[in-house]
Amino acid sequence: MEWITPVKPGFGGFDEPYERANVVFVGVPLDATSSYRSGYRFGPARIREASANLETYLTSAGLDVFERLNISDLGDLMVTPTDLRATGERISRSVQRITKDGKMPILLGGEHTLSYFAFQSFKDVFVVQLDAHRDLRDEYLGDKLCHATVMRRVLDHLPPERLLQVGIRSCSKEEAEFAREARIATYTSEQVIDDVPRIAAEARKLVGKARVYLTIDLDVLDPAFAPGVATPEPGGPSTVEILRLVRELGKLNISAFDVVELVPPHDDGTTAFAAAKIIYELLAAMASSPK
Amino acid sequence: MEWITPVKPGFGGFDEPYERANVVFVGVPLDATSSYRSGYRFGPARIREASANLETYLTSAGLDVFERLNISDLGDLMVTPTDLRATGERISRSVQRITKDGKMPILLGGEHTLSYFAFQSFKDVFVVQLDAHRDLRDEYLGDKLCHATVMRRVLDHLPPERLLQVGIRSCSKEEAEFAREARIATYTSEQVIDDVPRIAAEARKLVGKARVYLTIDLDVLDPAFAPGVATPEPGGPSTVEILRLVRELGKLNISAFDVVELVPPHDDGTTAFAAAKIIYELLAAMASSPK
Amino acid sequence: MEWITPVKPGFGGFDEPYERANVVFVGVPLDATSSYRSGYRFGPARIREASANLETYLTSAGLDVFERLNISDLGDLMVTPTDLRATGERISRSVQRITKDGKMPILLGGEHTLSYFAFQSFKDVFVVQLDAHRDLRDEYLGDKLCHATVMRRVLDHLPPERLLQVGIRSCSKEEAEFAREARIATYTSEQVIDDVPRIAAEARKLVGKARVYLTIDLDVLDPAFAPGVATPEPGGPSTVEILRLVRELGKLNISAFDVVELVPPHDDGTTAFAAAKIIYELLAAMASSPK
Amino acid sequence: MEWITPVKPGFGGFDEPYERANVVFVGVPLDATSSYRSGYRFGPARIREASANLETYLTSAGLDVFERLNISDLGDLMVTPTDLRATGERISRSVQRITKDGKMPILLGGEHTLSYFAFQSFKDVFVVQLDAHRDLRDEYLGDKLCHATVMRRVLDHLPPERLLQVGIRSCSKEEAEFAREARIATYTSEQVIDDVPRIAAEARKLVGKARVYLTIDLDVLDPAFAPGVATPEPGGPSTVEILRLVRELGKLNISAFDVVELVPPHDDGTTAFAAAKIIYELLAAMASSPK
Amino acid sequence: MEWITPVKPGFGGFDEPYERANVVFVGVPLDATSSYRSGYRFGPARIREASANLETYLTSAGLDVFERLNISDLGDLMVTPTDLRATGERISRSVQRITKDGKMPILLGGEHTLSYFAFQSFKDVFVVQLDAHRDLRDEYLGDKLCHATVMRRVLDHLPPERLLQVGIRSCSKEEAEFAREARIATYTSEQVIDDVPRIAAEARKLVGKARVYLTIDLDVLDPAFAPGVATPEPGGPSTVEILRLVRELGKLNISAFDVVELVPPHDDGTTAFAAAKIIYELLAAMASSPK
Amino acid sequence: MEWITPVKPGFGGFDEPYERANVVFVGVPLDATSSYRSGYRFGPARIREASANLETYLTSAGLDVFERLNISDLGDLMVTPTDLRATGERISRSVQRITKDGKMPILLGGEHTLSYFAFQSFKDVFVVQLDAHRDLRDEYLGDKLCHATVMRRVLDHLPPERLLQVGIRSCSKEEAEFAREARIATYTSEQVIDDVPRIAAEARKLVGKARVYLTIDLDVLDPAFAPGVATPEPGGPSTVEILRLVRELGKLNISAFDVVELVPPHDDGTTAFAAAKIIYELLAAMASSPK
Repeated sequence: MEWITPVKPGFGGFDEPYERANVVFVGVPLDATSSYRSGYRFGPARIREASANLETYLTSAGLDVFERLNISDLGDLMVTPTDLRATGERISRSVQRITKDGKMPILLGGEHTLSYFAFQSFKDVFVVQLDAHRDLRDEYLGDKLCHATVMRRVLDHLPPERLLQVGIRSCSKEEAEFAREARIATYTSEQVIDDVPRIAAEARKLVGKARVYLTIDLDVLDPAFAPGVATPEPGGPSTVEILRLVRELGKLNISAFDVVELVPPHDDGTTAFAAAKIIYELLAAMASSPK
Repeated sequence: MEWITPVKPGFGGFDEPYERANVVFVGVPLDATSSYRSGYRFGPARIREASANLETYLTSAGLDVFERLNISDLGDLMVTPTDLRATGERISRSVQRITKDGKMPILLGGEHTLSYFAFQSFKDVFVVQLDAHRDLRDEYLGDKLCHATVMRRVLDHLPPERLLQVGIRSCSKEEAEFAREARIATYTSEQVIDDVPRIAAEARKLVGKARVYLTIDLDVLDPAFAPGVATPEPGGPSTVEILRLVRELGKLNISAFDVVELVPPHDDGTTAFAAAKIIYELLAAMASSPK
Repeated sequence: MEWITPVKPGFGGFDEPYERANVVFVGVPLDATSSYRSGYRFGPARIREASANLETYLTSAGLDVFERLNISDLGDLMVTPTDLRATGERISRSVQRITKDGKMPILLGGEHTLSYFAFQSFKDVFVVQLDAHRDLRDEYLGDKLCHATVMRRVLDHLPPERLLQVGIRSCSKEEAEFAREARIATYTSEQVIDDVPRIAAEARKLVGKARVYLTIDLDVLDPAFAPGVATPEPGGPSTVEILRLVRELGKLNISAFDVVELVPPHDDGTTAFAAAKIIYELLAAMASSPK
Repeated sequence: MEWITPVKPGFGGFDEPYERANVVFVGVPLDATSSYRSGYRFGPARIREASANLETYLTSAGLDVFERLNISDLGDLMVTPTDLRATGERISRSVQRITKDGKMPILLGGEHTLSYFAFQSFKDVFVVQLDAHRDLRDEYLGDKLCHATVMRRVLDHLPPERLLQVGIRSCSKEEAEFAREARIATYTSEQVIDDVPRIAAEARKLVGKARVYLTIDLDVLDPAFAPGVATPEPGGPSTVEILRLVRELGKLNISAFDVVELVPPHDDGTTAFAAAKIIYELLAAMASSPK
Repeated sequence: MEWITPVKPGFGGFDEPYERANVVFVGVPLDATSSYRSGYRFGPARIREASANLETYLTSAGLDVFERLNISDLGDLMVTPTDLRATGERISRSVQRITKDGKMPILLGGEHTLSYFAFQSFKDVFVVQLDAHRDLRDEYLGDKLCHATVMRRVLDHLPPERLLQVGIRSCSKEEAEFAREARIATYTSEQVIDDVPRIAAEARKLVGKARVYLTIDLDVLDPAFAPGVATPEPGGPSTVEILRLVRELGKLNISAFDVVELVPPHDDGTTAFAAAKIIYELLAAMASSPK
Repeated sequence: MEWITPVKPGFGGFDEPYERANVVFVGVPLDATSSYRSGYRFGPARIREASANLETYLTSAGLDVFERLNISDLGDLMVTPTDLRATGERISRSVQRITKDGKMPILLGGEHTLSYFAFQSFKDVFVVQLDAHRDLRDEYLGDKLCHATVMRRVLDHLPPERLLQVGIRSCSKEEAEFAREARIATYTSEQVIDDVPRIAAEARKLVGKARVYLTIDLDVLDPAFAPGVATPEPGGPSTVEILRLVRELGKLNISAFDVVELVPPHDDGTTAFAAAKIIYELLAAMASSPK
């Protein structure tokens, strides 16, 4: 319909055919286990809307992301609200398929629980988590699998030395003790704020050449920079600090990543734009670093 | 702490001890199965806040609700986000206990699914449902039990001639056919708008002296009068029309009732105040009618 | 500065010199005694903003208000937040001065308490009150003079048979008894909704040729039509019903009127536009009726 | 990508190929000439979002719109913000093409000015306009073609006896005089409110079998039912009154229609849902009436 | 009612009996003297809501606040809107009683004026004020006692060398001159931003072992971190800077503290969460420092 | 009307007669060319409202702006929505007239396009632009003159070495190449964040004693500090960093300046207050530096 010139609804307003893509977006409007705010299901749509109103040329990397990468966006996958396992299988299957087809999956959340299902598609990965919270509870309000326990469930399948938590500033006593005993590599939010280059360098050294699953909970940002998250946690880094961090982390050997926990009914757009910018910065870092 | 004169947080700003009460409020911040908007969990709290800013004297009945009834408010019961059955059992058990203690339970929602669990505590009731939607799907997005199927699940345990649906203006083709075949007694929203007194009279005649479980989905109101609901359905009655209707329905032999589907993050207060006023009007009608 | 063509900030975007005016607006950003929502102080400004985006030609009357009347707007008078009496004296003095200069004062509120001070400038008036609440308490939360007691204080200086309350749907038991004993002429909101022409005709007959002080509490409208008020009271008339009513009341011998209780932080503009339209309709009715 | 089951972004969540369609949606995110509120450009997207959360089965007509009609949605056409003529040509060309292909175009606005460009594609049509305002100014703030003059520009190409204005409650003195002299067929909002069936019947008689271009400015609804419009005009009909009206107007010989003036940044969803419901009701009326 | 498991509404979702408590919260929903935004009365409730969604374990201190301290929450005390003195006496009496009972009072505001009444209960204290404004006017809009004069009124009873103002970035010329002449110890917001550890150390040295009344006006934070305050003042420190500061100030010999000036109708939750986190950080610092 | 003590609606709540002024404010509610958010037209009004709630005494400079400068505010000039050239001429003419009368014009936006028309009134100026975006496109969505091309249009009349761009963090590939080839002096946002004093010093050296037109696009601030802009761009400096910068830039030989791109419907007040504070800081710097 060239006489219409329609806006394409995919990430960045672009949309390559799946077959040609090397990067593939999938929205996961999961909205199931929150104990406080909810409304996650509009998250993927609002990140896409913001992405279409940011430049695809990244000044930090000096390149246009869409010139370097072939990007496809499959839209949102179907969520069955009361059947988390069925939804989870759909997530796992999609991530496996995209990976098997030799493409990198990027998941737009949705609730953090989705990371557990996406992670399961990978063997021998290092999990890097940007988050205000450890999410290491064994159970929360009677749930074994929810946003507050998701990384504990990941650790059911991952040696604790393969997990790096960055930006942490809140956990329960039990989580603190568990993390200490399991020797989870951790950088607190104040360590990030005080010296981004050092944290970035140490993280890169720790992870080395391992394949990486990167999960970014938007509440890693201070609520001033990300008011529209499910559980705001004051005392976090600024957007520019996180952009500088992901610019370095993007040089890791990333197999897949997700950006989660946007809650649009509580957002004024600031959080959605931060999410989209973080994704662009990661894509640019990947595009400019030899693998 | 009489030197503080604290505001009591219960419905109406009052709070009798449970033992003395003949009417007992329970909040059910269920927020589990929505396919569109969510944020139900703040519903009970916002209805209580509104109730404390309305008069307890009802001009329509010429009486003060709190002079006639002993009202207790137990607060919100605990919800396990990903375990609907466990939450459901907690709802059922609470309603049974209150009923067994000879008091009338009133449930503040929360998602409509809670009605299924509350209803189960009663035998031989007539269910009267004020709603824009039939909620008679057999399955919705893979769910057998959710806000879109809740009355169908009720009909698993109730003869269809014991269900009355009022204010209906939306359903799927399958629901329309099911309702026709099962001969569900129905008044559409336009029938309500055109003649409240006739509908009220016919409803009272149909139900007779049967014990009644009354469930009020706030989306029965037009979105102008209830913008803060999960699935707005244009074309409904005004608040004054619903107040006039419940003023009559309150004369039925009501065993329990619920008011559900308030979604505060999408409300400007209008819906919460309408909910609180509807409850006061029902309480006044009950208080003034001999049982 | 004709090279700028600046927008004039007065009501309707016009602004005649005071000397030439026969109608004079004064904003009273009083925000002192509320027990629930507040933010009244932005009320006058928002009514003016709305008024500049409505037509000054009234189709109901077939005339342009600004062609018939010379209208001046003095802006907002200064309010001393913690000294209600000082503010009150400023209100009284302004109303007296405008009246003495042979012009009609119109007050834009601001909290309803301002009506007490404005009313004091008149002798032998009939007070017509459009309101959801009677405001006849003798004391409220320890206050003798506040939005909930304002008409009781007026009755300290006015024989009860000179007060007409229209749109009433809420009061305390004490107010109900006081109104009954004092035989306050009253039309409930449901009476208004059922038959505007009858109520209007009866009101005009009751008041006759007496000089009138008209006070319009915007919560007389149902919250669907006026969500941005301090104490929403579900079950009121629609805007069109109130417009039809004031079209008739405007034919009374009005000496002054006020429009009060707008709370902009809780408004989406709907209430401000309703306020401005009601004022235009009143002005048109006055302009077209011979005095 | 059947392994994803993506949500389709078209109207109603469906999306037939253009070739098979008999009804074709086009979004026109025009946001150019407003003098008060703006943000129209998000209008089409929000109407689509609402449409996916309403039933496609219409109880009033007893049919499923998507079973009777093949519906395609081409997305939003490109708007050049400062070049209204270029955008207008794109609108005209699209409507012509769809019409020439034997399909009915439906335009989702966007600002009312788009109707002028869509109308130009038709000869010998009768224009039926649902609107609070006449939009008959010859010039507004220096503009000859904008939301306040659009129907006057239409009359540059249409005999005045081929225009019907319904729901009118506001205009300038000049517009009132122009309408009287040109004998524009008019029903005011109060006439609609007082007797929908009579207005509907008279309108159908007036228009007869003529081909119709129907334009629906959402501000025809009272602001309580449509708060998110550019210029709210208090005193309009309710949604149910407009639904009843369009249910009859849908039986006319409609060639194309538009729904315009939604301003999402000022909407709480109520207006978008009303817009979607009005469209469904129109489609159902068309599907059920023999042409 | 163990069959309900109700959420407790006190700070942190906990609620020890008063008798066992060593820390006692009182809400003061004072909303009386603002000259710009208002809506303070919902402040205490929103801080409590936020507090229930933050961890009670503080990673900075490595302890769980509720394990170390017995915390009781008495709810909100009654406010008489137009009688500031009566309300003030209620505040003073409550603080005295709690103090006399050997417990530490914490006041949740509410308007800053409450600090004057709370302060009066103490002799020989050092007042530490975190604030963007000096609040040292002698009179403001005709008021001798309001949010803009509160610290000047405190100085009617306190030697100026016992007052420390931190975070200051705004005052009138008169306040600047008064502060200079009275030699008020002051750290500006930019001094705080540039070197939190130095300011914290100097403040601790200045105050020494004196008993301290600490008052925290949330507008000390930059509006990005605290948008929901009565008078936003751009140019302030971040939340993490204030958290680091109070972590040190919490080691002072604090007798009581308040957190004031939250205005929920203008907040998106960010400010309420910052307030709750600041309180937790203070409690943890107190719990971990030997007195 | 001294008996009213009306609030003056000009910047800062003051309003000197034009004749006596040396600084003159003009609002330009231009809202024409945006491709994403709009609603600029309320921008000047909201900056004025904020300015009246900030101190006129600046602690950084130790002076009261209104004691040093005679400030007049002409209100908003008329905008013709669809005729950008006509509006532009009105802007140019106003700026020329004010300049010719020996006064300094300050423009309150409104969309950034206005800077092009204001700039045209000056010869031999140096343009200093604080902005997240370069705005150097040659064409955008078919427009030659809009917010995304405005500085390119300025460069049609200005040698590129007379342009300094500060705070830049986003542009298209074409803009990056154009800026490199044209050798536009540029400081990125991260350079500003890392060392404000150095950037300020270098900027002052670069500009020297040239006459300066300063244009401040509020999106130069990070969206946390300025959420209410048309195109939020994450990764910017804080308000305090920009305040420190303008405190130095205010010592340049400024002939005129503008503050643009505020979009109030998307603002919570934070952006409007930041805008007003930046203006005060600039005025104070000008007032305290000898010219």
